[in-house]
Amino acid sequence: MTADRKAGQSIGSVFPHLVSQDLPKMVAIKDADFSDVDAVFCCLPHGTTQEIIKGLPKSLKIVDLSADFRLRDISEYEEWYGQAHSAPELQKEVVYGLTEILREEIKGARVVANPGCYPTSVQLPLVPLIKANLIESKNIIIDSKSGVSGAGRGAKEANLYTEIAEGIYSYGVTRHRHVPEIEQGLSDAANSKVTVSFTPHLMPMSRGMQSTIYVELAAGVNFKDLNQQLKLSYEDEEFVVVLEEGAVPRTHNTQGSNFCFINVFPDRIPGRAIIISVIDNLVKGASGQALQNLNLMMGFPENTGLLYQPLFP
Amino acid sequence: MTADRKAGQSIGSVFPHLVSQDLPKMVAIKDADFSDVDAVFCCLPHGTTQEIIKGLPKSLKIVDLSADFRLRDISEYEEWYGQAHSAPELQKEVVYGLTEILREEIKGARVVANPGCYPTSVQLPLVPLIKANLIESKNIIIDSKSGVSGAGRGAKEANLYTEIAEGIYSYGVTRHRHVPEIEQGLSDAANSKVTVSFTPHLMPMSRGMQSTIYVELAAGVNFKDLNQQLKLSYEDEEFVVVLEEGAVPRTHNTQGSNFCFINVFPDRIPGRAIIISVIDNLVKGASGQALQNLNLMMGFPENTGLLYQPLFP
Amino acid sequence: MTADRKAGQSIGSVFPHLVSQDLPKMVAIKDADFSDVDAVFCCLPHGTTQEIIKGLPKSLKIVDLSADFRLRDISEYEEWYGQAHSAPELQKEVVYGLTEILREEIKGARVVANPGCYPTSVQLPLVPLIKANLIESKNIIIDSKSGVSGAGRGAKEANLYTEIAEGIYSYGVTRHRHVPEIEQGLSDAANSKVTVSFTPHLMPMSRGMQSTIYVELAAGVNFKDLNQQLKLSYEDEEFVVVLEEGAVPRTHNTQGSNFCFINVFPDRIPGRAIIISVIDNLVKGASGQALQNLNLMMGFPENTGLLYQPLFP
Amino acid sequence: MTADRKAGQSIGSVFPHLVSQDLPKMVAIKDADFSDVDAVFCCLPHGTTQEIIKGLPKSLKIVDLSADFRLRDISEYEEWYGQAHSAPELQKEVVYGLTEILREEIKGARVVANPGCYPTSVQLPLVPLIKANLIESKNIIIDSKSGVSGAGRGAKEANLYTEIAEGIYSYGVTRHRHVPEIEQGLSDAANSKVTVSFTPHLMPMSRGMQSTIYVELAAGVNFKDLNQQLKLSYEDEEFVVVLEEGAVPRTHNTQGSNFCFINVFPDRIPGRAIIISVIDNLVKGASGQALQNLNLMMGFPENTGLLYQPLFP
Repeated sequence: MTADRKAGQSIGSVFPHLVSQDLPKMVAIKDADFSDVDAVFCCLPHGTTQEIIKGLPKSLKIVDLSADFRLRDISEYEEWYGQAHSAPELQKEVVYGLTEILREEIKGARVVANPGCYPTSVQLPLVPLIKANLIESKNIIIDSKSGVSGAGRGAKEANLYTEIAEGIYSYGVTRHRHVPEIEQGLSDAANSKVTVSFTPHLMPMSRGMQSTIYVELAAGVNFKDLNQQLKLSYEDEEFVVVLEEGAVPRTHNTQGSNFCFINVFPDRIPGRAIIISVIDNLVKGASGQALQNLNLMMGFPENTGLLYQPLFP
Repeated sequence: MTADRKAGQSIGSVFPHLVSQDLPKMVAIKDADFSDVDAVFCCLPHGTTQEIIKGLPKSLKIVDLSADFRLRDISEYEEWYGQAHSAPELQKEVVYGLTEILREEIKGARVVANPGCYPTSVQLPLVPLIKANLIESKNIIIDSKSGVSGAGRGAKEANLYTEIAEGIYSYGVTRHRHVPEIEQGLSDAANSKVTVSFTPHLMPMSRGMQSTIYVELAAGVNFKDLNQQLKLSYEDEEFVVVLEEGAVPRTHNTQGSNFCFINVFPDRIPGRAIIISVIDNLVKGASGQALQNLNLMMGFPENTGLLYQPLFP
Repeated sequence: MTADRKAGQSIGSVFPHLVSQDLPKMVAIKDADFSDVDAVFCCLPHGTTQEIIKGLPKSLKIVDLSADFRLRDISEYEEWYGQAHSAPELQKEVVYGLTEILREEIKGARVVANPGCYPTSVQLPLVPLIKANLIESKNIIIDSKSGVSGAGRGAKEANLYTEIAEGIYSYGVTRHRHVPEIEQGLSDAANSKVTVSFTPHLMPMSRGMQSTIYVELAAGVNFKDLNQQLKLSYEDEEFVVVLEEGAVPRTHNTQGSNFCFINVFPDRIPGRAIIISVIDNLVKGASGQALQNLNLMMGFPENTGLLYQPLFP
Repeated sequence: MTADRKAGQSIGSVFPHLVSQDLPKMVAIKDADFSDVDAVFCCLPHGTTQEIIKGLPKSLKIVDLSADFRLRDISEYEEWYGQAHSAPELQKEVVYGLTEILREEIKGARVVANPGCYPTSVQLPLVPLIKANLIESKNIIIDSKSGVSGAGRGAKEANLYTEIAEGIYSYGVTRHRHVPEIEQGLSDAANSKVTVSFTPHLMPMSRGMQSTIYVELAAGVNFKDLNQQLKLSYEDEEFVVVLEEGAVPRTHNTQGSNFCFINVFPDRIPGRAIIISVIDNLVKGASGQALQNLNLMMGFPENTGLLYQPLFP
């Protein structure tokens, strides 16, 4: 385990909930001994991984949880992140780690770009539906809601308890950095450029993410066709669960687990449907999917370390 | 003050935060002496007011906070509430109490049907825009989020702290009883039948409501035109505030107050806009607007008793 | 899995967070087939277990999570619970399941009375200190704070989100039913009758419990002696962790886990000390300790099923 | 209104809940024009007021909300705050602003040191009881619980939503800086040096404070005598309310208001009692009491601007 400012500290002093675990002290990256290491998770600020990764042994398997390698098109990266991409060659060999969609590619990858939380919650339901031509790829309206842990542990006034508790608000309306990642995935599925409406909202809760997605049905399709397709696409999956008709996915029921729950509802306006997906943004939306990917890359059973059931209440 | 099960109790025993107020004990409605009463607020379960109101003196001004008289079309009431309307004659003279839109009618009314919380948050921004032909009245997508106090104080498992805290979910997808009320108001504005997509979500907070509304712009219109129209429509209003460009309305900033904050944002998809409105569901969405209406009916200054500033944090 | 009102339902309909688990439907107790069952957890309302247990096969190992068998003195049970004890003979063979204190007795028990949450948080730190004569057993002041899940899932107005969020209060001041259980354990340790001051407080959180305990030191003893004794008493324990000097136990760091964290602090008033213990009231304070006890009774490794690390945030 | 980093900004940009108020922009203190100002509230970091105040016109009435002038004994200030007192002469004329206890002195004061939140919640119940010799002044155990807004709006990791929500912990055990202020007030009442045990706890809520106080009764006294004395002491007070026997004060019922609710309970240990007081830490514990004091100093009705009722829920 490496650290920057906190190098030299015990894990128990930084994360007191792990105080009983017998873990090594954190070291600075430059002092890390990789001789005995097979794989790493990179959980660095955006822009940093592109640099750090150059100094790591080529033999390492890497799952990168930053946004540094999520966008294939380097110009998109530079536009949305406002800085030059410093590892364009490496970008070419990176596999995007949306596990259930790109499992085979991930198995053979050396570097995996772990998806963002919002893109995970949006692509899991939409990719199979677009591929099957069941919904229109225009006018997709995504209203997402996230717990505040997605913002990390940085000390910002905006994320103080007193600012967050008992209130909600939208942020980054249409300009959130997860937009190009979502559009990349949906465009791949549609084989044409997709532009989405995406509005994230901050919720007074630590964990949990819901995307409520408003779509136009393809001609002759109804909402049950969507549900059926999703059940088919995910019937062998352990972590993506399509609920029974009428059952409402709740973020609470994913808490601490790698599950994604999805369901489809008829809209009151004819020719439309409403798709709801929920995940724990810190698990399937981050570290859980990262572990799932590493398991694939290493040839381990895919659910190794991911058997925690949701915590309720 | 009247009560049913709690008749005979002091207000301080039912609402301990009012223990220091010198208020009369609650009495059963049948024991209430109306001889010295000019006006009443009816806060009864749906279906009850239609009955109770028949026994009240005709001289009383009435603001009814239930849904009993909100729908002009009695067949709509019966469809959505699943029971016969028992005061159809009275319905004809009732005025719908969306204050800023129907102020003149309210001034002369004997009975006002106080709007629902969701319909208030939706109609305040949309009615002026539809009237001005700035947005299409089809494919209006309303994604609303509400604090749990909207569900009242009834003892239900679904509203326990342990069920609500740290999680969110949609409910009544497209079938919420506020749908016909919203459609009635928007249809009036459009002079044609409007059907909306409306999905409410329950938030882990007591108070506050946000409607995020996704609309198609009329030909040649852009989001700034919407903002300008709203500023014009509400420039003389004390309680409806259109924010400066880019400022995001937050529910927290309405807490305990009668304010509605609104703003309009450009959508990433050309030809679309995103409208956000926030209120305190218990004030502008219920008791505050009720008082505002009664003030008008009685000829009092409209803001009497409504000068509380939002409480933060 | 048995149920009363909910018999016949799937586990996923009652606990949707378990919807992905392949579990049998719930059956009424009378329809349960015990032929293939080795052990049961009884999680029934107080007073019920004493009856139900009579009808269960004598060969079953039982961990009872109610209060029905926690008090050895039947008159104490009747005084605090206001009803006759209906299984006084069985009471004699029941072992009190405070695992770390009574491990050997639990191993050989057929029926274990699983401790209450408050008594667990209080006895784990106090029993070793009283036994070692390091603190006075008079004037022990216990100020406890609990998350609301301790009240169960019953639909009560008092436990609605709107009543609990953003506020705290004491309840059952000095009259909480866990008092006799605490006094029983401390009296056993002291070999004399101990009377405590115990005031529980309800916290706006789902899980977590802290007991802040104010004690008088025995002559010549200082707070470090207490810490040292506790470290000694629990040095081989997996789930009871005495923190390093100065480190403050936090309920958050036990969330979802079977840990109890304890520390001792000097008081500003000479001759006194402050002891803080925290647990997750639903795990070490209920189901976790129950499983720990059953593991002992069955000869399984004691931590089977209890390896979940605390969830943060 | 003055500001430091935020000078030049509108109040609506710093406190968006006040965006509808027609208020002047914030200016740097050095640019403030005091020619037309009668009185000021100083809400500056500890240590700053002692300097700033020297540059203010001598004619100004001042209510200081920092700790700079709360401790009469300058050596105590220097010990607890770790820095020299830079306005020792001024200290002599400052009046401590615990309104109900020192009303007459406050009326004539030029500078009032507004009490801390914890000291307010502790002294209001204890001072009359100590003065009346109804409780012992030794072994007073104060277990206090506070909402997180008491920590201010500074961006600290410790106060992030994710650190605070769904968990509790003690802090500053016996070393909190409000200790000398509490001991000063109780020593004055007792006419002898009082040392208290004081342990504050951080609650997952924005506002609200409870002090649960464990005391030894004087010989021959019982808990009802305490209640009676408090009712007598506060019978003419608007903001300090002693509840009826058995009624439990709840922080929620003070939210947004200047009230302090108090009650006394018998302890299970003979000769002891439990006193509970609750306030809103930001109102009676800070700005509300400050306004109450200024009203007195200016000869205004004491409740001017303080008539807001508690907000529930």
